[in-house]
Amino acid sequence: MNPNPFAEGCAWVDGQYIPIGEASVPITDMGFSRSDVTYDVVAVWQGGFFRLEDHLDRFERSCLCLRLAPLLDRDALRTVLFECVRRSGLRDAYVEMIATRGVPRAGERDVRRIRNRSYAYAIPYVWIADPELQETGLPLVIARSTERISSRAVDPKVKNFHWGDLVRGLFEAYDRDAHTAVLLDAAGHVTEGPGFNLFCYYRGTLLTPADGVLEGITRRTVLDLATQEGIPARMALFDAATLAEAEEIFITSTAGGIMPVTTLDGAPVGDGKPGLLTCRLRQRYWDAHTAGPWVTPVDYGA
Amino acid sequence: MNPNPFAEGCAWVDGQYIPIGEASVPITDMGFSRSDVTYDVVAVWQGGFFRLEDHLDRFERSCLCLRLAPLLDRDALRTVLFECVRRSGLRDAYVEMIATRGVPRAGERDVRRIRNRSYAYAIPYVWIADPELQETGLPLVIARSTERISSRAVDPKVKNFHWGDLVRGLFEAYDRDAHTAVLLDAAGHVTEGPGFNLFCYYRGTLLTPADGVLEGITRRTVLDLATQEGIPARMALFDAATLAEAEEIFITSTAGGIMPVTTLDGAPVGDGKPGLLTCRLRQRYWDAHTAGPWVTPVDYGA
Repeated sequence: MNPNPFAEGCAWVDGQYIPIGEASVPITDMGFSRSDVTYDVVAVWQGGFFRLEDHLDRFERSCLCLRLAPLLDRDALRTVLFECVRRSGLRDAYVEMIATRGVPRAGERDVRRIRNRSYAYAIPYVWIADPELQETGLPLVIARSTERISSRAVDPKVKNFHWGDLVRGLFEAYDRDAHTAVLLDAAGHVTEGPGFNLFCYYRGTLLTPADGVLEGITRRTVLDLATQEGIPARMALFDAATLAEAEEIFITSTAGGIMPVTTLDGAPVGDGKPGLLTCRLRQRYWDAHTAGPWVTPVDYGA
Repeated sequence: MNPNPFAEGCAWVDGQYIPIGEASVPITDMGFSRSDVTYDVVAVWQGGFFRLEDHLDRFERSCLCLRLAPLLDRDALRTVLFECVRRSGLRDAYVEMIATRGVPRAGERDVRRIRNRSYAYAIPYVWIADPELQETGLPLVIARSTERISSRAVDPKVKNFHWGDLVRGLFEAYDRDAHTAVLLDAAGHVTEGPGFNLFCYYRGTLLTPADGVLEGITRRTVLDLATQEGIPARMALFDAATLAEAEEIFITSTAGGIMPVTTLDGAPVGDGKPGLLTCRLRQRYWDAHTAGPWVTPVDYGA
């Protein structure tokens, strides 16, 4: 037994640090009962946060968009995140910050009058796809059962828990013997999948959907690394036909990094192996986690 | 002080009855972290459930659609709902049942392998609009800032917490000095608003949106009562122009019943007073809560 009560994860709720297994949200918090909530996830890798300030920037923008005034200001939130990681002792961690609308007083329906709430936690690093599975590459399908929620209804740039369409896509992927699914919008453009952005290498250019998607930090990192590596890359609108002709496909997420896709709707992508470009970017991505301007070390103390 | 610890509401969580203020959802329950959840709400009025079996039917269908296998079968769930009300002592109650995807084991991402969870609670009856406010009627706006989530992305017939668009509509309503907002779909058809269906009386027929909306039990009750009263009524697709020309408008919800709308986008509806038809149906609606086939009395015991 690990004697550290926070070994499975450390949460911060109502101003207290508690083991993740005890952390909960009031059933009447509208963050649950209306999914009136935003969040962000930042990785700690080998004892250092990766692009923490970029995640904090995005979280602040998300809160503003939803008119949420979280309990903690930026410095206080940063302190809480470091403390969750420090107490957990985790060197590789998945660190989440959450702001909810909060608990209305009995009968209150005016969302402006509710005191917003903040939560945070650090748990062991989460992989959308295990590293071993990434060696062979993932089978991906384009969802037919569902389309992506329109950005005119729910803004995907504000990181949210509205995963009904994404979970439906996941079930379809399982039914079709794939690992995960990417969704199209109403116009047939490729968007994103459960927890990830998508890239494809098509006719000499790396493409990622320009609209209707989360502005992922890993997505931005890929664009940054592509520039450094001299690989042509841009945001664009493209459809399933483009994806089907792509030489390489990969998905990106803070939970797993850059993950090669080797089959699309059952057919091989390129030669059916993780692409050269994908592997090169993936190597650069993990290299950037251990040294350089994007890393902020955690002080674990004694 | 009321000596009953359940006076503010009684919840059922993990097989225990607890005061509503102590009821919570694990922060790692995907019912929260992915809004992978369905629910239903049934009213208790003057000591009797209203159309309980219809609500249980709908809840079962919702669970099936999301591939949720809740902990409780129908009889056990019914028993829990009665017990929540009985312990609370509430004669007028808002009674909610919830099924969530549940808490994944560390690192588990396969939604099929997660044990689903059930929750339930009874709290004092909730009004979307206070009865006093209903005497003058509600100011309603048609949301311009957001469209309704498409039913091709998230099925509105499966009662869900994906309220991002609805909450945005609510904020817009407040900004425009209204009480609430109704949303249009991408094609410009009128759909629904935060927690309610909508009806309008237009050229001699009562209309309610046919598609892209929750199949509300109050909505169905209005259609049933209209038939009994000999009022022509049907489900139809209609746009904002139809609504603007309607002689009467009202919204319906288990949380408040049949609520007259007297201004639309700042202009009076009809003569600017609650409509005759609206008031007649509202009277029949509440009459049906105290006697008749839709009422199931609660046995509160000694």
